[in-house]
Amino acid sequence: MSEGPLVVSLGDPAGVGPELIVAAWAAREAELLPPFVVAGGAAILAAAAETRRLSVPIREVFHPAEALECFEFMLPVLAGADGDYRPGAPDRVGAELALASLTEATELVRNGDCSGLVTAPIAKSLLAEVGFTHPGQTEFVAAACGVAAEDAVMMLASPSLRTVPLTVHVALSAVPGLITSDLIVRKARIVARALAQDFGLEHPRLAIAALNPHAGEDGRMGHEDAAVIAPAVAALRAEGIDASGPHPADALFTPRARTTYDAALCMYHDQALVPLKALDFDQGVNVTLGLPIVRTSPDHGTAFGIAGQNLADPGATIAAIRMAGEIAARRAGVDLG
Amino acid sequence: MSEGPLVVSLGDPAGVGPELIVAAWAAREAELLPPFVVAGGAAILAAAAETRRLSVPIREVFHPAEALECFEFMLPVLAGADGDYRPGAPDRVGAELALASLTEATELVRNGDCSGLVTAPIAKSLLAEVGFTHPGQTEFVAAACGVAAEDAVMMLASPSLRTVPLTVHVALSAVPGLITSDLIVRKARIVARALAQDFGLEHPRLAIAALNPHAGEDGRMGHEDAAVIAPAVAALRAEGIDASGPHPADALFTPRARTTYDAALCMYHDQALVPLKALDFDQGVNVTLGLPIVRTSPDHGTAFGIAGQNLADPGATIAAIRMAGEIAARRAGVDLG
Repeated sequence: MSEGPLVVSLGDPAGVGPELIVAAWAAREAELLPPFVVAGGAAILAAAAETRRLSVPIREVFHPAEALECFEFMLPVLAGADGDYRPGAPDRVGAELALASLTEATELVRNGDCSGLVTAPIAKSLLAEVGFTHPGQTEFVAAACGVAAEDAVMMLASPSLRTVPLTVHVALSAVPGLITSDLIVRKARIVARALAQDFGLEHPRLAIAALNPHAGEDGRMGHEDAAVIAPAVAALRAEGIDASGPHPADALFTPRARTTYDAALCMYHDQALVPLKALDFDQGVNVTLGLPIVRTSPDHGTAFGIAGQNLADPGATIAAIRMAGEIAARRAGVDLG
Repeated sequence: MSEGPLVVSLGDPAGVGPELIVAAWAAREAELLPPFVVAGGAAILAAAAETRRLSVPIREVFHPAEALECFEFMLPVLAGADGDYRPGAPDRVGAELALASLTEATELVRNGDCSGLVTAPIAKSLLAEVGFTHPGQTEFVAAACGVAAEDAVMMLASPSLRTVPLTVHVALSAVPGLITSDLIVRKARIVARALAQDFGLEHPRLAIAALNPHAGEDGRMGHEDAAVIAPAVAALRAEGIDASGPHPADALFTPRARTTYDAALCMYHDQALVPLKALDFDQGVNVTLGLPIVRTSPDHGTAFGIAGQNLADPGATIAAIRMAGEIAARRAGVDLG
């Protein structure tokens, strides 16, 4: 595996990405962050540091390996695409810059120059206008790696909880029809494998959430839990995966219940995101499981409304960088204890 | 309003109700609980106290008013229906006893002998076998008060949060079809009125949750937020109710967001229950809004699996008794400061 630094993509230059990257670098010692290089945007990062009132000397580098030497004293940024810092005012030029940075960063991890990818937030609708054909960065990275989009599994991880939404950006009314036993089994296998390989959990325990209140209560409140989810749990157990459920969702996130599993597989977006953000807002990391490369991101958007105002919390960006470093080290065979 | 004590129904005698009632009485001083009387089950409560290893002298009384005198030293229990204590082994005899206790307790609040009703948990399916025709205790109490079931609104309250599920015990697939602007407006009015009258909030702020992820994101993930929920919010504001939304559910329960409203109106059971139980398990109170009488209950079931084992946490029962006392005092015009 790569011994290079992590690479962080710039994100939309009008969003909170640039200021959170410089804030993370400024906190590198206190937070014990591994070395990273930013893919482009040196002038933007310098301007973002000013809005945060941070002293962040920037070092333009031409190869990621240079970052390892200077990271302690300067923020290494790959020479290349750059632009103006206009926080809160997104435009096509910025979207093009974000896409160039994402493309370069992904390639640097694919070719082994960097050990893991951390993506800063982008604006999907603006990217679509400049030719981006993927629903989001996860699908872009999966495609770059030759992995089918449905095998790149989004997991949200925070200090209290790991959750995996099995369906994501779809209407709630479409969810019951999208949940199949095959979908649950396929994604659960990827999650179990990744928890072992990337998180060092020898026997990962998966809790599968119910779709309906009270897990359907013997069919009185929906049939899917008994007809679709329970058979998937049985199939997973039959192949040796420690899966349990379907668990009524309101009982699954209590403090006691959270100690009984390593990840909760959820049937829809809000089922996975509501408990995580209620418990650990500003600390959620989005990890893509099932890829040949390491990829994380902070679990929030561009937040154009507060960009450049020194309001955005760097906690999730710091956590995403730290987690990418830990996964990369584990894949490289480093004993993290 | 009544100056009588609160009345607590026994709940299913095979469940955790009896032991939590005696545990609450034992904690009356530390928890500053108002006086209450239990509707029947003296022998069961005495046996439950033994399983909790609590010294609870029981005083059989013939009128609730007697409870006010003895509550400090003895647990007052109305003479009447009683039975054997068989925790974890529910049967029809126990269900009949639970129903008799609920019926008597409700009547004592209706006729003014008691100032508020706290119901211990029952087993709905067993009650149905002995002729109980209501989906739950809330509907039973509403009917006893002559209030339409849909105007008796369930609110969950815990130290961190108040939530109102606008639909409750239905399959998730049925939820989108049940959410109408009229339903939201009708229930929100009841909630706003109750927060003022019963919780002393002069200008209650209601946050209305979205149905779809990201509140539908301009219709890309479901049309209901724009077509059904937004018009209801506008109608509520037009009549002077401080309503906001539709808010993406995953953003609605973060620590910062929770400071911006007094109650969150949720579209379905788990949307309301997941954040509350994740944040404040064992402290959730179910309050019925819109009734002429005061009614609360702990937000958990009979828990037959742990009954009689000294495992059940009395926190929610204690909180339900305290809240009923506070609402009763507020309705009686006592200044709670």
